[in-house]
Amino acid sequence: MRVAYQELHDVLFQVLRKVGLEPDRAALCARLFADSSRDGVPSHGLNLFPRFVRMIELGVVDISARPARGAAHGALERWDGRRGIGNLNAHHSMERAIALAGEHGLGCVALANTNHWGRGGNFGWQAADAGVIGICWTNTLPNLPPWGAPEARIGNNPIVVSVPRPRGHVVLDMALSQFSYGALASYRMRGELLPVAGGFDVHGELTRDPAAIEASRRPLPIGFWKGSGLSIVLDLVAAQLAGGRATHQVSTDAEQETGLSQVFVAIDVSTLGESRDADRIAEEIVEHLHATATSGDTIRYPGERTLETRRRNLAEGVPVEPSIWDRVRGL
Amino acid sequence: MRVAYQELHDVLFQVLRKVGLEPDRAALCARLFADSSRDGVPSHGLNLFPRFVRMIELGVVDISARPARGAAHGALERWDGRRGIGNLNAHHSMERAIALAGEHGLGCVALANTNHWGRGGNFGWQAADAGVIGICWTNTLPNLPPWGAPEARIGNNPIVVSVPRPRGHVVLDMALSQFSYGALASYRMRGELLPVAGGFDVHGELTRDPAAIEASRRPLPIGFWKGSGLSIVLDLVAAQLAGGRATHQVSTDAEQETGLSQVFVAIDVSTLGESRDADRIAEEIVEHLHATATSGDTIRYPGERTLETRRRNLAEGVPVEPSIWDRVRGL
Repeated sequence: MRVAYQELHDVLFQVLRKVGLEPDRAALCARLFADSSRDGVPSHGLNLFPRFVRMIELGVVDISARPARGAAHGALERWDGRRGIGNLNAHHSMERAIALAGEHGLGCVALANTNHWGRGGNFGWQAADAGVIGICWTNTLPNLPPWGAPEARIGNNPIVVSVPRPRGHVVLDMALSQFSYGALASYRMRGELLPVAGGFDVHGELTRDPAAIEASRRPLPIGFWKGSGLSIVLDLVAAQLAGGRATHQVSTDAEQETGLSQVFVAIDVSTLGESRDADRIAEEIVEHLHATATSGDTIRYPGERTLETRRRNLAEGVPVEPSIWDRVRGL
Repeated sequence: MRVAYQELHDVLFQVLRKVGLEPDRAALCARLFADSSRDGVPSHGLNLFPRFVRMIELGVVDISARPARGAAHGALERWDGRRGIGNLNAHHSMERAIALAGEHGLGCVALANTNHWGRGGNFGWQAADAGVIGICWTNTLPNLPPWGAPEARIGNNPIVVSVPRPRGHVVLDMALSQFSYGALASYRMRGELLPVAGGFDVHGELTRDPAAIEASRRPLPIGFWKGSGLSIVLDLVAAQLAGGRATHQVSTDAEQETGLSQVFVAIDVSTLGESRDADRIAEEIVEHLHATATSGDTIRYPGERTLETRRRNLAEGVPVEPSIWDRVRGL
């Protein structure tokens, strides 16, 4: 079923007011959840919302905590998220990085002690909407085996890179696992095999069977050993810059996943002069990519599908899982 | 066969003097090529050297050109590589980014109109040796099909992330293709299949046969659609920041691969206060990773193998391909 974006937002807003958020913070928090569903990522929108509320009830997420600036030097700042609301902390951090970029050309905010940021892409769109390049990533609970090991000890550490473009921002938002557990479940429920190998089965063989990977808990990093290495360095950089926790210090229980470290970088090309060249470069790359398609294939730039989904869902309503929608309305 | 590191360096140095480099630039350029072979990456060291000399002779690489600063704002600077020597331009850019990081907390140098930087890892080690986090990437000629298309239109855009660590820096240096053409050739010559699918054959089927991928020219990006998207955004950010060329504007002829765009970011955590916490965080992550290994497996952090290879090659001599070594000595 589909519900109007405004209705989705308002229902989330009311729940957040009920659990105690101030109006302005409830509105922004609701918008970030609603935007995620609107853009075709319900796993990090409406579907994540019940767990988020549960984590408030459990005291894992502290709704009254505001991020506090720690050490800072020029364009580099360290903030303490104080176990506050993950998407609000992240939004604040990108906003601060954007301000630093306006002043210094680029800015970096490292955030410690924060919570799940929901959909990372939100903060990429935020940067691009502000006219700057955004790069951000988060560490996570251990949910991925490093290459060569059977147990989940590294995170899927989603990374976002966004570039403003007048005709539609380019926004890459990807976790470092080839398939999320949510994606594996979707394939399994549809009775489909994965399009490519997504992990190992319990015998250590690569497989396209989603259920076999759910059973082994051995999903693949992107690029096998390469994504494993990338996960390790992103965790290390985030923990060091933030002075915060690394993945190995985060609970493996999703409802207790807290104390995360995140990095937000903004780069403001317009501080170097006029930005028409940058716009032309983006346009030419997109045009070239579209021209690559042969015989009916469409080659899309990162974020292109998001924009199509957004337009459709704003026009026709945002798809919601009826059971989850009912549950959230009852909160 | 193996030759002493110093001998390798000196032979390269003499060739560079002969083609006209000043002593200090010849020494640094020779060191960067020699370091690559020393660290176990001969494809970007000695084996790349003959093509580099050929590109000087062809006038593609201008040995007299020095990078020139263009627009700059605070911690963000744009430099014109003026089609000079790729590894010297890159080394200069990372040096400048490190200086900016000392001043502003972090710094970013975007370099346009440059040439192949050889082994990107060199500039990661450079940053880590200077005690700062280094992140850099380059675009390349089109050598990889975007996901969903049969023709090479995007680059394998190597990216480097390095973190200083007193007991051995963590340095990730990876191209966004699952296997380089050099790696495919090595597997083929050894008569081996790839450990995982590395591309499509001419019929569009995924294959582990290196020769089939060499024939189709359809290697895989890491993580299939994910690495394809990452390649696109890295190219876009590099071209925009540098005000330079994107992959689609670079010649597909390797000997004419010039006018590249690169980005060098340095982040100096020590500007936030004392760095013992950062060292502790790195140590704990490495220890945890090592403890992940079960039953004889060794889980390594990125760069760990490099350091082992370096120690061995400094002690026993650097392996060289005899035919290439003879050829370079005859230059």
